[in-house]
Order: sequence, then C-alpha cells, then structure tokens
Amino acid sequence: MDRFRVAAVVTLRRSIADVQGTTVEQALHALGFRAIENVRIGKYVEMEIRAASAEEAHRHAEQACQRLLANPVIEDYQILAVTPAVAKEVP
Amino acid sequence: MDRFRVAAVVTLRRSIADVQGTTVEQALHALGFRAIENVRIGKYVEMEIRAASAEEAHRHAEQACQRLLANPVIEDYQILAVTPAVAKEVP
Repeated sequence: MDRFRVAAVVTLRRSIADVQGTTVEQALHALGFRAIENVRIGKYVEMEIRAASAEEAHRHAEQACQRLLANPVIEDYQILAVTPAVAKEVP
Repeated sequence: MDRFRVAAVVTLRRSIADVQGTTVEQALHALGFRAIENVRIGKYVEMEIRAASAEEAHRHAEQACQRLLANPVIEDYQILAVTPAVAKEVP
C-alpha cells in the first residue's frame, strides 16, 4: 500500500448563482481590482489516501466526492491531482 | 487586453488545526472510506482577469489573495493555474 496525496475541488454548477463569489467580486472591485470578474468560490479538499496505485486513489477520491463531498444536484467536482505522498516518518 | 482564467487555492497553514477537515474525515470513515486520512479543507477561487499577459494576471491574482482572499496570519494561498479565457461572445 502506498500513500497518495489527492486534491479535489467542488464547485457550484455554472447554472447556479454563486452569491459568495459575487460578494467577493464586489469586495475586490471596491479594493480597486477592477480587472477581476466572474469570481466563483468552491471548496478545495486535500487528503491522503492509502491505495495500491494512483488510479485506485483517484477512484477512492471520486467516490468520496460522489457520496459526501459534493452535492450532485448543485455541485460539480474535479480531481485535480494525485501525487505520491512522502511518508512523514522517514528519518 | 486578454482575458485569463485564474484558479487560486486558500488553505489553512499546516500548524493551524483544521476542524472542518477533521469533521469531514470522520464522516468519510463512518461511510467506510477508511483509507482516507489527513483531510484538509480550503477555499477554491476561480476568476477571470483582464490583463496584458498571463504574468500580469498571475500578479493580480496574487495581490487579490494577499489583500482579500487569504488571511496571512492563518492561511496560505497558491495560484494553481492561469489559462487563456475563451470569450463567450465569439459566434
């Protein structure tokens, strides 16, 4: 069993109004960042997964997104990266 | 001026306890995902930035993280990607 570090992102579907994103965009404009538009806010989830391969870790992460992390009615998810995790115990 | 799509991630510093991540991890374990550990939750911010170059867009995004999106005392930020945005008006 190896350890993999997996990063996933859960975002509101494009058709769903992103109130938090709109608020952040207005705050950015108020601070002078007028070139920034269409801000959308999502959740970023980083986890370590014990698996036999990167593919298996990816599959576990997808299942976790489907069953808990994302609400499929209003959210999409995306697995951004699966990389080998460096064991912390190594001397 | 071109448009760039920029993705940024804001996460709690490693030294700060991530209560939300711990709660999600416990929920995953209760659902049977016992191979998943060290869950940490952050914010994912996607935005479009008008800029002369990808480098300028990157710089704008960094400044936005420093001035608004991240709390430098407890959070780190990372610009994940800067990609050309496809104009929606193109026929």
